[in-house]
Amino acid sequence: MIKSNQRPLNDETGATGVPAEQLAALKAIVGDKGLLLPSEGGAGNDLLPYETCVRYGAGKAAFVVRPATSSEVSQVLACCVAQGITVIPQSGNSGLVGASTPDATGTQGVLSLDRLSGTMELDEDNRSVTVGAGVRLSDLNSFLAERGYSFPIDLGADPRIGGMIATNTGGARFLRYGDVRQNTLGIKVVLADDQGTELDFMSGLRKDNTGVDWKQIFIGTSGVYGVITEAVLNVERLPKQSAAALLVPRDEAAVLPLLRALEERCGSQLTAFEGMSAEAMACAFDHVPSLRNPFPGGELPGYAILAEVSRSWDKRETEESLDDLLEAVLAEIWEFEGEPLANAFIGRPEEMWSLRHALSEGVKHAGKLVPFDVSFRRGVLMDFRAAMAVELPKHFPEVRICDFGHIGDGGLHFNLAIAKDDPRLTDESFIPALRNWVVTRVTDFKGSFSAEHAIGRSNQSFYDSYTPEKIKSLAAGLKDLTSPGHLGAVKLG
Amino acid sequence: MIKSNQRPLNDETGATGVPAEQLAALKAIVGDKGLLLPSEGGAGNDLLPYETCVRYGAGKAAFVVRPATSSEVSQVLACCVAQGITVIPQSGNSGLVGASTPDATGTQGVLSLDRLSGTMELDEDNRSVTVGAGVRLSDLNSFLAERGYSFPIDLGADPRIGGMIATNTGGARFLRYGDVRQNTLGIKVVLADDQGTELDFMSGLRKDNTGVDWKQIFIGTSGVYGVITEAVLNVERLPKQSAAALLVPRDEAAVLPLLRALEERCGSQLTAFEGMSAEAMACAFDHVPSLRNPFPGGELPGYAILAEVSRSWDKRETEESLDDLLEAVLAEIWEFEGEPLANAFIGRPEEMWSLRHALSEGVKHAGKLVPFDVSFRRGVLMDFRAAMAVELPKHFPEVRICDFGHIGDGGLHFNLAIAKDDPRLTDESFIPALRNWVVTRVTDFKGSFSAEHAIGRSNQSFYDSYTPEKIKSLAAGLKDLTSPGHLGAVKLG
Repeated sequence: MIKSNQRPLNDETGATGVPAEQLAALKAIVGDKGLLLPSEGGAGNDLLPYETCVRYGAGKAAFVVRPATSSEVSQVLACCVAQGITVIPQSGNSGLVGASTPDATGTQGVLSLDRLSGTMELDEDNRSVTVGAGVRLSDLNSFLAERGYSFPIDLGADPRIGGMIATNTGGARFLRYGDVRQNTLGIKVVLADDQGTELDFMSGLRKDNTGVDWKQIFIGTSGVYGVITEAVLNVERLPKQSAAALLVPRDEAAVLPLLRALEERCGSQLTAFEGMSAEAMACAFDHVPSLRNPFPGGELPGYAILAEVSRSWDKRETEESLDDLLEAVLAEIWEFEGEPLANAFIGRPEEMWSLRHALSEGVKHAGKLVPFDVSFRRGVLMDFRAAMAVELPKHFPEVRICDFGHIGDGGLHFNLAIAKDDPRLTDESFIPALRNWVVTRVTDFKGSFSAEHAIGRSNQSFYDSYTPEKIKSLAAGLKDLTSPGHLGAVKLG
Repeated sequence: MIKSNQRPLNDETGATGVPAEQLAALKAIVGDKGLLLPSEGGAGNDLLPYETCVRYGAGKAAFVVRPATSSEVSQVLACCVAQGITVIPQSGNSGLVGASTPDATGTQGVLSLDRLSGTMELDEDNRSVTVGAGVRLSDLNSFLAERGYSFPIDLGADPRIGGMIATNTGGARFLRYGDVRQNTLGIKVVLADDQGTELDFMSGLRKDNTGVDWKQIFIGTSGVYGVITEAVLNVERLPKQSAAALLVPRDEAAVLPLLRALEERCGSQLTAFEGMSAEAMACAFDHVPSLRNPFPGGELPGYAILAEVSRSWDKRETEESLDDLLEAVLAEIWEFEGEPLANAFIGRPEEMWSLRHALSEGVKHAGKLVPFDVSFRRGVLMDFRAAMAVELPKHFPEVRICDFGHIGDGGLHFNLAIAKDDPRLTDESFIPALRNWVVTRVTDFKGSFSAEHAIGRSNQSFYDSYTPEKIKSLAAGLKDLTSPGHLGAVKLG
């Protein structure tokens, strides 16, 4: 199911599954610093960080090639295509679905973008930045922050830009700023074809309708159609004012009315509307004892919302502060909207985000984690949660639901945790059965089984099961058309 | 250059270039009301509105087929593919580049979306609407306005939704709300293949990364890859407060600093920043005498900006009004930004938009109009204008530049007007030479020759000249993959 070349390991290839003369050809392109090989004895393995996925174990790379320019990427791909070598593009390797690491055969090469990090060029008039695909999000945002701007994709991880585009990451402020797709004005991309064709869509225009918008097919497709080497990104002015509140809805049916009431009263000032289950918050407090519990008596509500409003301009003297605005708006909602609010706490935004950002780390310690990155129409998300609370215990008792999510955009991190000493974990079929059951129910609710992590080895089987044959056939045709070589860890066709 | 089938007109086909049994097959699908044929004598031609393009003359249709459902579209396309008939999809036929009308051969059929207008379904929780491709923008917005929402693409024309998606229209409030692409959450599309395959991407999810985002290839590609029959669109809350000002920049170099200063101080409240040349305004005042001239003594400045701020929520008592905000912000800019402003007038937004919206109509009466819909990086747009003001008179004397544009997104309606009695107009090569020269200079400035009107017969030659061969070959491959039948008025491959 996973695409990989079929080259057998043999004696001639030594520690790596690729013949020496081919490695020499790669080294001729990228130089000594640009090619990492497995050590003969296995000691001091420089390749390990490139072979290990954050969430789904490790593979074994035949080599890691680290081109320093888009032109080197082109030569590397042409060389690998000629030799029939499978290449796995890897950016920050912070993805959560195993789309950027090699399989276990030792025959796949990793093409790391980590040296494509030279360029960062702000065009203030165009409100855009030109950036190498290997630049880290944090470095880009430090560069931009000094100049009053930000690339407004708010994530827990610190990926590199190329991978963010290849996975079309979303994040916690999607509600206001959209996803990476919406903020990508241009890319340069190299195809895995005979020539290693470079395609330049770097005009950085905001309005341009001269045929197919080709960059779109490389966004969110996990690098199987080409390797992104450079990008032009929309940037936004840094927030200058913000206020946040923790909202306790009357019950879970009150969550969407609350969102609508806040959208109605705050408009584009509403920058986040994040949902947190009691279970997820409990995991965070258990794991990070220093985290302040903002609820009276420390008693966690069944569900809480982190709502944030912000403005990108300095507060004017005559302007109501955002704290006052939020307080007044919540009072109005309390009074006029049939009391969807049971409680609300306005506080320091950083403190509230500390809780929100501790959830990911917290749930990792809740036991064996079985995570899902799913999405629904916004009005369906809470229905799915409610159904799961009833159904899951019947089908899979003693599995904790520790979910949180981006209610404002319909995204849900539906995390399940199983006690580490649960005897069912010794049964290899248990977790796959659980995963299949949940994803079936997600699709019953017309949801997506990959909201913002794209397709990788870990959800390839769901892609295979839930994608119509016609779409797979179109995807295979698009692959032949763009990058007929062996590129990427997944198979969309 | 324009794709068309090669069927010769012959006696057997009567008034239309398509044999009677094929017309009968189409009638069997869509019924009497669904098929319009040319009248034998040519009198009372029902087809005329379907044959005539707003800007570029008329063609001759073999028939106009008007399916009422997506399934009928599928049957019609399968039938036409089987018979080798070229089909031109037509939505509101308000496009400006000749992408939705047949050529002069009388052998092409028009597939009108005008009966696909049944559906309008608002999902308030998801802030989205499901809509038939044949619904007019004005009807959609009336429906939405009653419920407090709008589809925020602000155009002078009144297209149908399918065509808006196929051309990826932009409009005057792109700066705040983006283009149609950004606001399209889903489409249903029918391919011109043997089966008339229907592809359903109608989940309406805001976050979904499960492979290729296929809808993207049908957006902005003038219907050559498939016929859009239905869509899920993002909707925004209606503006509840707005204020507008006419700004006179110190000189043209001050326009971008003004935009940046307003973005810095108004953030997402800035919903339009439109530029108007004195020539374009003069055309509007000449043509619409009732239009109030807001400038002191009626003296037109060389360039003016319409800046609009708006909010989607009701003004709160403690909130500064937008008029006050705009006044204070402009005073600040005056004081702190090196005086980019020569003058500014705050007034009723409707009055200011009346002027802005009268420009299109006004320039039509300035003489023989040679219009260009171009775009640049925002910082380059005014440089292009400045260069043209110097160069155009040298190469093409006595051609008036009557431009206006969406400075906030880099779009420029670069309109040229030539006196109707200019003897050069009798030379058929004159206007093509002028158009080629302008587009060459646009590309020298790294601009786009089609910002928001997409590709049609009238700019096909620019596509052919300025699109790299590799991109054309990819476009041809995509055509074979999706709609191998004869679909659409243009050729991207």
